[in-house]
Amino acid sequence: MIVNSKDLKIFDISMPINHSMPVYKGREAKRPIISLDSNFDTGSSYETRLEMNLHTGTHLDTPKHMILSGYTLKELELSKVITDCKVFDLTDVRDKITDMDLMKLDIKEGDFILLKTRNSFEDILENEFVYVDRDGANYLAKLKIKGVGIDSLGVERDQPDHETHISLFNSDIMILEGLRLKDIEEGEYLLNAAPIYIPESEAAPVRAYLIK
Amino acid sequence: MIVNSKDLKIFDISMPINHSMPVYKGREAKRPIISLDSNFDTGSSYETRLEMNLHTGTHLDTPKHMILSGYTLKELELSKVITDCKVFDLTDVRDKITDMDLMKLDIKEGDFILLKTRNSFEDILENEFVYVDRDGANYLAKLKIKGVGIDSLGVERDQPDHETHISLFNSDIMILEGLRLKDIEEGEYLLNAAPIYIPESEAAPVRAYLIK
Repeated sequence: MIVNSKDLKIFDISMPINHSMPVYKGREAKRPIISLDSNFDTGSSYETRLEMNLHTGTHLDTPKHMILSGYTLKELELSKVITDCKVFDLTDVRDKITDMDLMKLDIKEGDFILLKTRNSFEDILENEFVYVDRDGANYLAKLKIKGVGIDSLGVERDQPDHETHISLFNSDIMILEGLRLKDIEEGEYLLNAAPIYIPESEAAPVRAYLIK
Repeated sequence: MIVNSKDLKIFDISMPINHSMPVYKGREAKRPIISLDSNFDTGSSYETRLEMNLHTGTHLDTPKHMILSGYTLKELELSKVITDCKVFDLTDVRDKITDMDLMKLDIKEGDFILLKTRNSFEDILENEFVYVDRDGANYLAKLKIKGVGIDSLGVERDQPDHETHISLFNSDIMILEGLRLKDIEEGEYLLNAAPIYIPESEAAPVRAYLIK
């Protein structure tokens, strides 16, 4: 026996995917379309079909999302997203997470950090979600962290030049978006955030969970 | 630190999702449609869109797939699919896995078993894949195992009455399909097979991996 499964404490930190879920800035193009390919009236089994932009719900971005020459999921090593992580409580932040907010935290080179904000309690306010600003991203890039996860559908709020994404990607920092951290206490966990394997894609949905 | 990530050996056992992937019995309706919502010519970011039957590629089924009153992913406890597992080598089986094949193996109540067959080496022959027959499923049901994973896109070959699926589901045995086990040796591992969270659905894609 590798582990006693009964001893594992598993915390789901993923958003449910359905038609009424919060989507990035409330954009209809980001809303999943869920339909049936068959049910027990039309066939002998029940089969669902999903159509979705891959940045909907809990998902991982790779650099290709913002950088023409950036890599896709094909090049992602799973050890980058199956790793120790630190959850930080930033629920006092109202608008954006800056370098000043991050400097107060125990963040070190190689850390994968998850930022718990008021987004986790508010169904991700569509236009006013808490995000990481350019200075915050530059600070994390300079620290050379491994990854950053946040409970908004974007680590930025659609900056014209996408400085937050690009600063993180240029330092090969993983970006995990759409987490649900309401019930997660500050501390260290084993993060499991392996995206479904669409090799040519710049993002994919993740069933993200923490193990303690 | 919970674990030293460098000490984790992670084995990906998932199929790549793309247009030319093997699909169940070669049916076009099971083939994913991958398109772009934006690229660097049409916008300032690169975003992919996926349309797919949820039984394509590596995925987990819940009882609703075959049983009208069966449960969906909403009721799935993650501890059922994040658990110890045993990988068995059945690469000598040519056609179907029967109770006689399974009786030879060290399978006990509560085990999650993964069946490695010639499918893993043959890109899942569309009409002639190795599957678990009715007697094999009944044997596993009687043993009260926790789950069964296989490297075909169906644990059965479209039986008219779906006896294999239904026998397993009636005993609340998890069914994990579309694994890729070519490089996996027999033995015990920690299985991670959490499907993306579509609560109302009877199945969902999984990035399945083993940890040793």
